[in-house]
Amino acid sequence: MDIYQEKIEQAVALLDDFDLDVWLILVRETAEHSDPVLKLWEPLRVVWPAAFIVARGGQRIAITGHGDDEAIRTSGLFDPVIPYTHSIRRDLVRVLTELDPKTIGVNYSQDDVSADGLTYGMWLNLQDYLKDTPYRDRLVSAQQFVEALRGRKTPQELDCMRQAIRISMEIFEATTEWLRPGLSEREIYDFVHQQVRMRGVDFAWPASGCPNLNAGPDSPWGHATVSEARTAQGQTLNMDFGVRVDGYCSDNQRVWYFLREGETKAPPEVTRIFEAVAGAIQAAADFVRPGVQGWEVDAVARRYIVEAGYPEYPHALGHSVGRHAHDGGVGFYPRWERYGQKPYGRIYEGGVFTLELGVRSEFGYIGLEEEILVTANGCEWMAPPQQELILVPPR
Amino acid sequence: MDIYQEKIEQAVALLDDFDLDVWLILVRETAEHSDPVLKLWEPLRVVWPAAFIVARGGQRIAITGHGDDEAIRTSGLFDPVIPYTHSIRRDLVRVLTELDPKTIGVNYSQDDVSADGLTYGMWLNLQDYLKDTPYRDRLVSAQQFVEALRGRKTPQELDCMRQAIRISMEIFEATTEWLRPGLSEREIYDFVHQQVRMRGVDFAWPASGCPNLNAGPDSPWGHATVSEARTAQGQTLNMDFGVRVDGYCSDNQRVWYFLREGETKAPPEVTRIFEAVAGAIQAAADFVRPGVQGWEVDAVARRYIVEAGYPEYPHALGHSVGRHAHDGGVGFYPRWERYGQKPYGRIYEGGVFTLELGVRSEFGYIGLEEEILVTANGCEWMAPPQQELILVPPR
Repeated sequence: MDIYQEKIEQAVALLDDFDLDVWLILVRETAEHSDPVLKLWEPLRVVWPAAFIVARGGQRIAITGHGDDEAIRTSGLFDPVIPYTHSIRRDLVRVLTELDPKTIGVNYSQDDVSADGLTYGMWLNLQDYLKDTPYRDRLVSAQQFVEALRGRKTPQELDCMRQAIRISMEIFEATTEWLRPGLSEREIYDFVHQQVRMRGVDFAWPASGCPNLNAGPDSPWGHATVSEARTAQGQTLNMDFGVRVDGYCSDNQRVWYFLREGETKAPPEVTRIFEAVAGAIQAAADFVRPGVQGWEVDAVARRYIVEAGYPEYPHALGHSVGRHAHDGGVGFYPRWERYGQKPYGRIYEGGVFTLELGVRSEFGYIGLEEEILVTANGCEWMAPPQQELILVPPR
Repeated sequence: MDIYQEKIEQAVALLDDFDLDVWLILVRETAEHSDPVLKLWEPLRVVWPAAFIVARGGQRIAITGHGDDEAIRTSGLFDPVIPYTHSIRRDLVRVLTELDPKTIGVNYSQDDVSADGLTYGMWLNLQDYLKDTPYRDRLVSAQQFVEALRGRKTPQELDCMRQAIRISMEIFEATTEWLRPGLSEREIYDFVHQQVRMRGVDFAWPASGCPNLNAGPDSPWGHATVSEARTAQGQTLNMDFGVRVDGYCSDNQRVWYFLREGETKAPPEVTRIFEAVAGAIQAAADFVRPGVQGWEVDAVARRYIVEAGYPEYPHALGHSVGRHAHDGGVGFYPRWERYGQKPYGRIYEGGVFTLELGVRSEFGYIGLEEEILVTANGCEWMAPPQQELILVPPR
């Protein structure tokens, strides 16, 4: 069974848990604007409006424009694949009438981009298609179902993710071997890109910001482009980076300190900050287990870093990783309005999440990002965490 | 002035034509799910909810999560770029209150995927952000504005598109030189991919279906994957293909006939079909001019092919081309429900469109696709159209 079949069977099985009779994905022109959940099934590409229907009884029915149907049929994911020429309306109403679902999950969410693939225009179209049927009033948000589907990794998905993080760590190590003071962020960026190409893998997020680099204190923090800054003795370098292997991402940060002439270790303040950051991540990892709410995990690390005397980080402690580096769904989000209801979601076994934070200092941005897999009683690292500053010699 | 500045200045200027005081783009996590219009400005990438506001008075204001702001500022497209930490709500309401627009265009459309970037979840959020303000009732669809903005190509956009079609035609010619009977669709696909890579350009649509090939009569028609079919004497090959150069696409079809031993030209029926197809495209090109409705152009070609004794094509005659191969907006759409209101849109000067149709026959699919630029009084070809079957010798 391939990874797509494995995932669609998981979808059928999950409908029960969320009391959905039908899950309906409604898309058009996916090369222009797709639904994020279609990342789970790469062959599902269409030009004309299409409905992908998964029902609690195990039915998987696709309705596509004539001309799109053959590729969907070839995928083996849906049977029947019903082609139409003039409008999807009639077949959609007929299929729903036959299935007669009490609840129809569709992909909208105020909080979670990954579960919010239905556009407002398509929502209006769906209202119109179903206007003379009982089904219009049976539409509900599939948010929690989609989050579980994306979040709970299957064995084949975990294999891909382990391979991605392994390759990513190889590239971090190759970078360590090569680094020296005086390099521009552009030179480091080019080196990492060459490493990625050599290994024949993809970037975990758009290549222009992957890796994201912070050399020294003057490099602008955040999701910025490559700056003019250079590595320098007595300063740090932070790199946020990930690769995508067979469609699955890794996402990690590592931090280096560039020794001055005569130094054999980093100055005490650099070490103190590093230990506060690594300690906050370890405290969160020690705390996490299935059933806790995401914000509780964030709060453990946030309290730790503040008690160590450093400012709160202006973002969440961590997010799910999968087909996308920021995979949506439950994560370690603080209870801030911008995160909506996401902080209150409960952590589940089989989820892969990041733990990430940092401190901006006069030496540069000192940040770490690790990946964990949630297990029955706690979690395990997806790759060994960084436990000490990586020291780059002065020459 | 670079292409992004040129395009955003065009946006400011176009607001007047569509009686919009403000155009508001509301997005989040664009690497996971972007608004199609952001293709026009590649540097506009964000993680947290962001608002990009263009106002009739020339103001361009961005509100982004803290951490996303620096990259947006660096783009030079918006000033000020306002960062927030907890929620976008307060700054969004404040900026709108200051601008006090009577109409706020947002990106939703029942008919046009390219103008339908706002998700249903984000629509609900926007309703919520604006609930105690007069602005909630001033939201309108920006569909026609977005279509004009994407459709009316600037001089720099036309330069990119001319370069794309030129490279694409070079690849069609290289394919002609190399073709022979007995090749599998996979071998042709691989050859074309090699040609694309050699030239350092991108595919106009996802590489798995680019080129789309139909060798002989048994290859499944439509947006299918590479089939088992092979080129053969006495049969045709159709190739639908395009490249993307500096972000702009080409989209064309060419058709070859594989001579049998002793043949010096195609059989009369193949030639008759080819001439009906090419004639229908020419008739449509002769008819098109600014101000006509899209369906009228489709009807000219549709009538021509039917009067020649062949079936109607089960799709539209043509679509806009630009950042995306199927660029949305006005096009040559028949008045079928699946095309919504799009058939009634009026054709405008400066638009680039395809003219495409074909006939399935016992020899294979005989189809053509040409690109035109609409001029003040008619149109011109973006590249010389195919006027004769391309003949491939038997050995």
